[in-house]
Amino acid sequence: SEPPTVVDTSDPYSLDPARHPGLLFHNNKPCNAELPPSLQTENWITPNALFFIRHHHPVPVIDPVAFRLSFHGVGVRPIALTMEDLKERFPKTTVVSTVQCGGNRRAELDAISPTAGIGWGTGAVSNAQWGGVLLRDVLVYSGLLTPEVAQSLGAHHIVFKAADGLEASIPIDKALAVFGDTLLAYEMNGEQLPAEHGGPIRLIVPGHVGIRNVKWVTQVISSTEEAMGPWQRGIAYKGFSPNVSDFSSVDVESILSIQEMPVQSVVVSPEPNSVVAIDGDDDTIVLSGWAWSGGGRGIVRVDISSDGGETWTTATLTDGSEQHPYRAWAWTFWEGEVAVPKNARTGGAVTLLCRATDSSYNVQPERVESIWNKRGLNNTAWHRVHINVKLEK
Amino acid sequence: SEPPTVVDTSDPYSLDPARHPGLLFHNNKPCNAELPPSLQTENWITPNALFFIRHHHPVPVIDPVAFRLSFHGVGVRPIALTMEDLKERFPKTTVVSTVQCGGNRRAELDAISPTAGIGWGTGAVSNAQWGGVLLRDVLVYSGLLTPEVAQSLGAHHIVFKAADGLEASIPIDKALAVFGDTLLAYEMNGEQLPAEHGGPIRLIVPGHVGIRNVKWVTQVISSTEEAMGPWQRGIAYKGFSPNVSDFSSVDVESILSIQEMPVQSVVVSPEPNSVVAIDGDDDTIVLSGWAWSGGGRGIVRVDISSDGGETWTTATLTDGSEQHPYRAWAWTFWEGEVAVPKNARTGGAVTLLCRATDSSYNVQPERVESIWNKRGLNNTAWHRVHINVKLEK
Ligand SMILES: [Mo]
Ligand SMILES: [Mo]
Repeated sequence: SEPPTVVDTSDPYSLDPARHPGLLFHNNKPCNAELPPSLQTENWITPNALFFIRHHHPVPVIDPVAFRLSFHGVGVRPIALTMEDLKERFPKTTVVSTVQCGGNRRAELDAISPTAGIGWGTGAVSNAQWGGVLLRDVLVYSGLLTPEVAQSLGAHHIVFKAADGLEASIPIDKALAVFGDTLLAYEMNGEQLPAEHGGPIRLIVPGHVGIRNVKWVTQVISSTEEAMGPWQRGIAYKGFSPNVSDFSSVDVESILSIQEMPVQSVVVSPEPNSVVAIDGDDDTIVLSGWAWSGGGRGIVRVDISSDGGETWTTATLTDGSEQHPYRAWAWTFWEGEVAVPKNARTGGAVTLLCRATDSSYNVQPERVESIWNKRGLNNTAWHRVHINVKLEK
Repeated sequence: SEPPTVVDTSDPYSLDPARHPGLLFHNNKPCNAELPPSLQTENWITPNALFFIRHHHPVPVIDPVAFRLSFHGVGVRPIALTMEDLKERFPKTTVVSTVQCGGNRRAELDAISPTAGIGWGTGAVSNAQWGGVLLRDVLVYSGLLTPEVAQSLGAHHIVFKAADGLEASIPIDKALAVFGDTLLAYEMNGEQLPAEHGGPIRLIVPGHVGIRNVKWVTQVISSTEEAMGPWQRGIAYKGFSPNVSDFSSVDVESILSIQEMPVQSVVVSPEPNSVVAIDGDDDTIVLSGWAWSGGGRGIVRVDISSDGGETWTTATLTDGSEQHPYRAWAWTFWEGEVAVPKNARTGGAVTLLCRATDSSYNVQPERVESIWNKRGLNNTAWHRVHINVKLEK
């Protein structure tokens, strides 16, 4: 779609960038759009133009020359850095990290009983190579915030304030971890970070839920407490029990904000409701998809089944499978074959499913019903795809 | 039981310590004994005499005066430290950490189809306060192995060799993590570390499977590779798919050794097969138990049910619930009440169950069948206890 030739200044979204028409749009103001299933495993690195979009506000317009990124708070020597400072004073680091929205696969929860939020399919997830400076380097070498100082002063969170008004925080353990790879990113897949995806500077918190990967960061604040505001302390990113149908019945503050995400996997092909042609001699159906887990936990196995999980076939892990098992920030692709069920040999409905195991041997829950939650987050149930087999010959 | 007055020197187990008769013994040579259900939540800190025992060999007899702990390997300045050196050169640190065997709850897997290993109930787990020095402090300050050196030389594992011949390793990320709390322990609950539990020095790797908490450590070796030997590279601590019924059919080396464990919970009371008396006015049954997860992931919620998971009650978290959500090395106790099912109001069989969610929002799998594995490891299925309700009045 083309940008409007006349900008309507009464519309705060009038300056939002043009977007790839291949995305699946849920909203435009603010923009929320997912990577369609057919494109999820097309490229291990998602092209910038197809990277999923989850905004809460208009895309801020930031002048990179006037821009300053300020650091302050408990135990931090106050500093304000230009883009030049960031690029020249600290080594450039690249990290390939998959970003997944906490609400990915919410539509399956909504199918049981409505939840609160955007009805994402499987595509509120994408993968990119991010370039920038390690947050730890800036905090330690310019901010003088060592782990020892943080511990002695009770600094437990690093809070990020963004140009669009969003505010979120991450535990200081992650921010300062030597092998944590938390990045202040200014590049995305070798290009200057687009405004759409948080330019000039966004946070990349590998292994954590999308919302913590704060876009358009302007302030980095060391704090004794986690961030204020709805994205941290409200219901927006908190996990509820299936027995909670009404947020007023629970003490929301006492529930832990989501940071790291649980293990996830998705069947990308065959697509839901597709018709798979087999000839009478074929006794298998080929499946492929992706898997990912939070906290850098790599994927150690993906099991697939065509009989509801009575029997399993172990899929072959492909792109991403060579990642470090405890610093596997990016998704892993997989493919495998399952038997055509006997009763479908002459055509008919088949349910295909996948489940992954991560490097801490966490597994996915079997049924969506067992983890349904009113906010519609962290749906990691075994992913089921219903198809029809059509006999050819 | 009393120690024998005449030692049979032909029996390598003749010098094993006397043991508390309240433990549940599976074997004596080597000793394997669990903490009985009735005592699991009696004390948040398990008394030393009741701490579960999982040995592979006789308890080594080590002279603490002649003892040296040696450090060497890739990037490490070779050193050998006496007990005095360890205690005087490094600050003493205490960590409360739960140790759980990878085979805990194996008996439930065996009930479906036999696995390979000791048929543990729920008690291959205990909790203690360990005192000692941080492994990181010794490696960094005496061994001069900084994270930067380790990374540049490709040192990926720290290997531990023990006086009983056991050998195991942990990822260097864990060994050097500032907030990882990996300890060379010489105290257990304020007492000198008993020989039974690894004295004079054992490793405590909070959040990792029992086997990595190597007892009777004599050598600490930085390495490009993980440890050799059956406990690391063999089938002993590897997770298999349910479809593997024969180890010869898989490439064992390609399967990741278990390090961090997945989220777990157990109903301790009522005990299995017990008769719970209710009077006609009672409409609830009180449940209690413990929950724990690997990797320092705290317990954010325990759900309990008396109808197979159709409906849930959220339990109250008690001892251990105040731990740091990402450095929660110790178990969390819980208690709650579930409704007496309508069809059991006049007496009859009831199945009670629990499941926990950890701070990465990982959940437990629903059915033992779905995670059955030939080696019998990581059984973290929803824990079910079958009881009978008896109507009084
Ligand atoms: Mo999100
Ligand atoms: Mo174990």
